[in-house]
Amino acid sequence: MISREQYQQACTRALEYFAKAGIAITPEERQHIEVADFGLGRLEQVGLELLVYVNTERVCAKELVLFPWQLCPEHRHPPVAGEPGKEETFRCRMGAVYLYVPGVSVSNPAARVPADIARYLTVWHEVVLQPGQQYTLLPDTAHWFQAGPEGAIVSEFSTKSRDESDIFTDPRIERITRISDI
Amino acid sequence: MISREQYQQACTRALEYFAKAGIAITPEERQHIEVADFGLGRLEQVGLELLVYVNTERVCAKELVLFPWQLCPEHRHPPVAGEPGKEETFRCRMGAVYLYVPGVSVSNPAARVPADIARYLTVWHEVVLQPGQQYTLLPDTAHWFQAGPEGAIVSEFSTKSRDESDIFTDPRIERITRISDI
Repeated sequence: MISREQYQQACTRALEYFAKAGIAITPEERQHIEVADFGLGRLEQVGLELLVYVNTERVCAKELVLFPWQLCPEHRHPPVAGEPGKEETFRCRMGAVYLYVPGVSVSNPAARVPADIARYLTVWHEVVLQPGQQYTLLPDTAHWFQAGPEGAIVSEFSTKSRDESDIFTDPRIERITRISDI
Repeated sequence: MISREQYQQACTRALEYFAKAGIAITPEERQHIEVADFGLGRLEQVGLELLVYVNTERVCAKELVLFPWQLCPEHRHPPVAGEPGKEETFRCRMGAVYLYVPGVSVSNPAARVPADIARYLTVWHEVVLQPGQQYTLLPDTAHWFQAGPEGAIVSEFSTKSRDESDIFTDPRIERITRISDI
């Protein structure tokens, strides 16, 4: 859970990232930034800011903002409603992002992970994405990622997004953010 | 048909657009800019520069560059291989683009169209896209577009791209560019 104030601050900060990258968004879109704390209530460490451009039955495109060292925890996109899981391409626009997928584990990861989070990370094959670099994830593939010291903006091009169907490795995680007005 | 020199000049100019918009692309991608003259050999008037980021069986994302007043002629994306036609979202990143789709015709279009091209334009419902604005086209919908006086960059998020299957209204058009080395 995050407070309304934390939510607003994260939105404002995400908008600053878009401005810095020269990514134009409409006044209406400014009101629809999504902030995900994954239910852990420590947004600076574990979290993601999202702007969904389009999400139809067939196609989804969004921008992801990660603040410095902010981490999106390990998850996968399983088959849903008789379709293969979500396929997604991450394209780094600004900053750097460390993406981890199945494969040979890196011996000295660039990511910096709190111990209680690392406990639930099972894939350690490292893909470093600098601006202009991208990686395509096939459906149902475990992955997690973290921004480097400057934060990052990542464009995601994918099939339909069904965030509520994502399967996270860490059982503590709730994908849908709750905002407290207290 | 365009000459190798025209092709190279258009690539260089498209790269300048990306640089101006702060869109990072890799050295390899710089070698894979596509230039389409639609077979008419008058690239400044009728043409498009493209960078395809990803085009899998399910998802496609690309950047389109249009030079000032450059026009992409009317076409539609029919059903192919038992699937509905291509669905695409155009999102303006820089400049302005005038998009025309089925609907009530505009009385005073922003587009400036040579007479022989206008002859094959059947849809005149105008959608003006400024940076940050977007429009989603359903499959098999006739559409054409033209950049305004500053040119434009447009992101396209779509299902699989099968350019060779596109149906153009103007029978003179060849979608696949031929480059002359003479």
